[in-house]
Amino acid sequence: MNYQARIDAARALMAERGLDVLLVSNPANRQYLSGFTNHDPSAAGAAAWIVLTAHAGYFVTNFLYFEGVRETMRHLEPVRAETRPLPGVIDLLKRVPGAAIGFEGSWVNYSVYAKLVEELGQERQLVAADGLIEQLRAIKDADELAIMRRAIAVTDRAYTHVVKQLRPGQTEKEIAWALERALRDGGADGMAFGPSVAAGAHAAVPHHLNSDYALRIGEPVWIDMGARIDGYCADLTRSFCVGSAPPEYLEAYDLVLRAQQKAIAELRAGLTGKEADALAREVIKAAGRGDEFGHSLGHGVGLDIHEMPSIGQNSSDVLRAGMIVTVEPGVYRPGWGGVRIEDVVLIKPDGVDVLSAAAKQPVIGGS
Amino acid sequence: MNYQARIDAARALMAERGLDVLLVSNPANRQYLSGFTNHDPSAAGAAAWIVLTAHAGYFVTNFLYFEGVRETMRHLEPVRAETRPLPGVIDLLKRVPGAAIGFEGSWVNYSVYAKLVEELGQERQLVAADGLIEQLRAIKDADELAIMRRAIAVTDRAYTHVVKQLRPGQTEKEIAWALERALRDGGADGMAFGPSVAAGAHAAVPHHLNSDYALRIGEPVWIDMGARIDGYCADLTRSFCVGSAPPEYLEAYDLVLRAQQKAIAELRAGLTGKEADALAREVIKAAGRGDEFGHSLGHGVGLDIHEMPSIGQNSSDVLRAGMIVTVEPGVYRPGWGGVRIEDVVLIKPDGVDVLSAAAKQPVIGGS
Repeated sequence: MNYQARIDAARALMAERGLDVLLVSNPANRQYLSGFTNHDPSAAGAAAWIVLTAHAGYFVTNFLYFEGVRETMRHLEPVRAETRPLPGVIDLLKRVPGAAIGFEGSWVNYSVYAKLVEELGQERQLVAADGLIEQLRAIKDADELAIMRRAIAVTDRAYTHVVKQLRPGQTEKEIAWALERALRDGGADGMAFGPSVAAGAHAAVPHHLNSDYALRIGEPVWIDMGARIDGYCADLTRSFCVGSAPPEYLEAYDLVLRAQQKAIAELRAGLTGKEADALAREVIKAAGRGDEFGHSLGHGVGLDIHEMPSIGQNSSDVLRAGMIVTVEPGVYRPGWGGVRIEDVVLIKPDGVDVLSAAAKQPVIGGS
Repeated sequence: MNYQARIDAARALMAERGLDVLLVSNPANRQYLSGFTNHDPSAAGAAAWIVLTAHAGYFVTNFLYFEGVRETMRHLEPVRAETRPLPGVIDLLKRVPGAAIGFEGSWVNYSVYAKLVEELGQERQLVAADGLIEQLRAIKDADELAIMRRAIAVTDRAYTHVVKQLRPGQTEKEIAWALERALRDGGADGMAFGPSVAAGAHAAVPHHLNSDYALRIGEPVWIDMGARIDGYCADLTRSFCVGSAPPEYLEAYDLVLRAQQKAIAELRAGLTGKEADALAREVIKAAGRGDEFGHSLGHGVGLDIHEMPSIGQNSSDVLRAGMIVTVEPGVYRPGWGGVRIEDVVLIKPDGVDVLSAAAKQPVIGGS
């Protein structure tokens, strides 16, 4: 990974925004700049902070991680905090010049913010600098694309392997665990999320928690899953009935698939998130089912499962070449179920490369 | 679970602190009051918020979760937000009376705080009310103790199963995955964390990230792991060498074990965290190795893997009957490795019940 190039790009954005110092502890942003991987529960308990200035860069951690970091950290100077990392960051900031200190407003919690304000005094100004590193992360470099391709391929294979063995009577939880085993055995470091398995009426809930409900012939099912490899997330949704599907299912499936195909065919750099979302939404609206598509068409995916850009009705984000996004229209009816079909695509100047390859079949399994 | 009793207890603490309204979206606190399980990445993306007043309680979520919640939520009134949950919370707050609005300062991020301040205006006062629900959660009720016992038993069995099969040449990552499979096959819903496996010099890093380093005969190893069941976390650390152990390892092991046994023998309700920590720390200091024990003796464990109380050199928390805490002294030497031994115990008026049962053996595996 070219961490130095990323740090240089972050400095250019800091200059644009008038920031003398940038604090980074959001795990995905921190990994992007340093390679350090740790999923902190919150900023209050952050395992490490990056303190970046125009000419220097520090990686502040404590006893728990310092030995590991000292051996591997490049481009940033490891600093060992005596107790927790945050007081070490405050000590360092008192020695580092610069009035305008940017911080991650959507990550840093109020208590940490209040502590920084109290300790740094009136001469220093704390500025919520959201989206700065996220903006860089939205465009993937070649190293990142290669990892994403691996994570997506592992996900496709695990889905294909497990779905072949599905039978009526298996529960959502059993299937989710079979998927997780297949993902891990196939090379995933962990799960990007879930896996989430929704069967029957549960498929009407776009974010379902796996239950002991069992597959039944002819009922809607969707599976939403993704491998995490080297921190990067895959994201795949497939929908089907086991054994056979009633006509209303096939109709919904066909509608969602056409909406997705339309979006994939016309997505390209230069569209806004709202324009991209409309590609699929218009197809579903034209069928009179617009109100059944209650979520966005897609989102960026990378070190976070949801990251920039947003592809939804209220998104002014502009799609740019090198972005990797999901395309996932769906329709849902309470009490009946739902259909969602999701691929990950790479945005190019004149179209997309579809990175997902798992088969799309409205009916799986024999009679 | 007796959610009504917990809500009543929260209201009593709200009255003590002069709060008219309490906002809860921290996933563990939210589950404690409602049973809703979801691991939100941050407060900005919280899937649901509880809005509690002296006489009413609301559970605000949106399209993604509303259907599921409406069917299952008791004691709190489900409210469907039109877009994201946070704007729904703000709309509700504008209609709910009460000037003093408590929020979770260590969870709510700066951007959400700034939005609340902006939208609610000068007449409403936002008060960081940290530790309010956490304080209730520190004392486990009978339902929680039963779940914790299950999570701990699953963890003990998985450890015992995997450690029997360890051989030189297996890598940290392979062992971690074997542990995860054993935990899941044994009934865990997921991982409380990790598992973390540190071999050789890696065992000198108290929070190690699993690598491809392989076990070697006579080198230090520790395994830190825990099942998550119904949201509750187990936490177990065992240390050993495979095949044989050099004298300096056995000496360190014996020291850590004696420190742990001393703490377990003398822990009881009424001690402060500092006093409890000293029970073990004095044993390690007396051996001249106090500076090798660079972390706290333990912490509360429950819906979060680290929760109240803290048992460390700077903790004024008072241990009370019904608390469930870890007891985990360790010594670490850079370049050599380390030893940590961790059990989970239930604090009683006059001592503790040790809940962990996995064997403690400084050497495992035949020659």
